[in-house]
Amino acid sequence: MKESGRKQGAASPCAACKLLRRRCAQDCVFAPYFPADEPQKFANVHKVFGASNVNKMLQELPVHQRGDAVSSIVYEANARVRDPVYGCVGAISSLQQQIDALQTQLALTQAEVVHLRQFIK
Amino acid sequence: MKESGRKQGAASPCAACKLLRRRCAQDCVFAPYFPADEPQKFANVHKVFGASNVNKMLQELPVHQRGDAVSSIVYEANARVRDPVYGCVGAISSLQQQIDALQTQLALTQAEVVHLRQFIK
Repeated sequence: MKESGRKQGAASPCAACKLLRRRCAQDCVFAPYFPADEPQKFANVHKVFGASNVNKMLQELPVHQRGDAVSSIVYEANARVRDPVYGCVGAISSLQQQIDALQTQLALTQAEVVHLRQFIK
Repeated sequence: MKESGRKQGAASPCAACKLLRRRCAQDCVFAPYFPADEPQKFANVHKVFGASNVNKMLQELPVHQRGDAVSSIVYEANARVRDPVYGCVGAISSLQQQIDALQTQLALTQAEVVHLRQFIK
């Protein structure tokens, strides 16, 4: 999941530093995950969480967990931009409803199995 | 879901204004949802999203949708504090796995119903 946001030695800043109009340092915490050619990926994250908060969140994690953290942060940010009221909590509600429906259907089907077995014995 | 963060005419600020050390205005956007006696509710929201972003998000919504938006924002913030890598996306993955397992179990049980019916006809 790790992406190269900035070529080694190249002067072009990552998408985060470009949006924030700042120099993209060699050790930029965003550069590996926000490549210059995907500006919208960082724009939504910045709009929803703010660059400063995401910077802090990433700094508090070991490097090997940052890729997964960025993926989940990007997912949440995109969901919030699509649905400003429920964000990805809307997806959670919808999945829970699907689980309820499946559990009901499974219980009915299991009851039918029990019922049918009575005729076979 | 609407809560009174600040008594009418009372001087005590809501949990958001208290944390931000600012005067809680009569039309404070946070006051109805972040009562003074629940400081942690706003603290996590501020840590994850930032007060300024949440202010903007709420201002962009009609008043009748703000309560639901605050609930989902609080849910996401708490999930991110509990699980800094996956946040509430961890819950989504887990629910999707449950759905996969239920669908498999349902398909097997439905196949068993078809099988048993052959013996009855």
